[in-house]
Amino acid sequence: MSDTNALAALIDALRRLPGVGVKSASRMAFHLLQHDRAGAQVLARALEKAATQIRHCSLCHTFTENEVCATCQDPRRDRSKLCVVETPADQAAVERTAAFGGLYFVLMGKLSPLDGIGPKDIGLDKLLARATDGEVREVILATNFTAEGEATAHVIGEALKARALSVTRLARGVPAGSELEYVDLGTIAHALVDRK
Amino acid sequence: MSDTNALAALIDALRRLPGVGVKSASRMAFHLLQHDRAGAQVLARALEKAATQIRHCSLCHTFTENEVCATCQDPRRDRSKLCVVETPADQAAVERTAAFGGLYFVLMGKLSPLDGIGPKDIGLDKLLARATDGEVREVILATNFTAEGEATAHVIGEALKARALSVTRLARGVPAGSELEYVDLGTIAHALVDRK
Repeated sequence: MSDTNALAALIDALRRLPGVGVKSASRMAFHLLQHDRAGAQVLARALEKAATQIRHCSLCHTFTENEVCATCQDPRRDRSKLCVVETPADQAAVERTAAFGGLYFVLMGKLSPLDGIGPKDIGLDKLLARATDGEVREVILATNFTAEGEATAHVIGEALKARALSVTRLARGVPAGSELEYVDLGTIAHALVDRK
Repeated sequence: MSDTNALAALIDALRRLPGVGVKSASRMAFHLLQHDRAGAQVLARALEKAATQIRHCSLCHTFTENEVCATCQDPRRDRSKLCVVETPADQAAVERTAAFGGLYFVLMGKLSPLDGIGPKDIGLDKLLARATDGEVREVILATNFTAEGEATAHVIGEALKARALSVTRLARGVPAGSELEYVDLGTIAHALVDRK
């Protein structure tokens, strides 16, 4: 695609984004150069700023520009409840329900032995220190209901129970608004077992 | 997704890329911050460099860092043939065939009245000046075989014929390696009309 090294370097760099192959990267580069050079510079500055200024909250491990994130600083939060999620996006999903007023711990990943991601990589020791600070009474495991999320919840749950903490898991069951006919068998089976 | 302005700004900026919505942008930002900060800085520098250093070749209008691109500078090229394509990616596709040794003119777009893209926006006056330089004998229209590409080829072709230039269009027909049973009717009809 023409002879410019700057263009080839841009296409290569765009391919570092997840889900972007060489065709998408070329299309993105062409779009920015032909129609939105201002956008290219806005994106360049945003990347630079984010890469240098964003760090992890010392309490919950999510992204923040400060030592402690706004959620952990909020005095209205119930400090006896700690909700463990995989990512900031999962935390945002729980927040949107407005059904939880406690604090979070964001693993920033999940256990995945095949990818070499072990307990240390998801900050298990930090979570244990955080959960045994004397204020936390209940830890709610809100990792995803995937194989890896379940395994992560199991490992964390066992470690917390060994420290005599109350550990709960989000309820499994039939999604709100769904018709049984279209719900998968595993979900119905779990909903039967966990009926109340 | 947490409380950082730098992160929100990054997600907004990533959404300026074509085909990237808020979910993809969040995923990209999370990936860069969690797993590839070096990549974020590489991309930032590549964007900055491309946005400031890449301009258009004064002869063929493609992207280049120089006054004239490498293809137009190449003395081995046949200067009597000019192939008109929509984008640098289309030019690259023609180049990969190794079946064309002439020069190019890259429109950097196509006629699209609904989007307000007229002859001036695709550099029709530049193309006419380029094609009437005295060296060019034949102009090959290699715009896409879409409605807009065909309209673009028609408009350019009429303007060039009015200047007594030889104008050709890429042949339409059945793609190499295809079985007639699976080729669309329009293509077979064209291949019948253009049989030789």
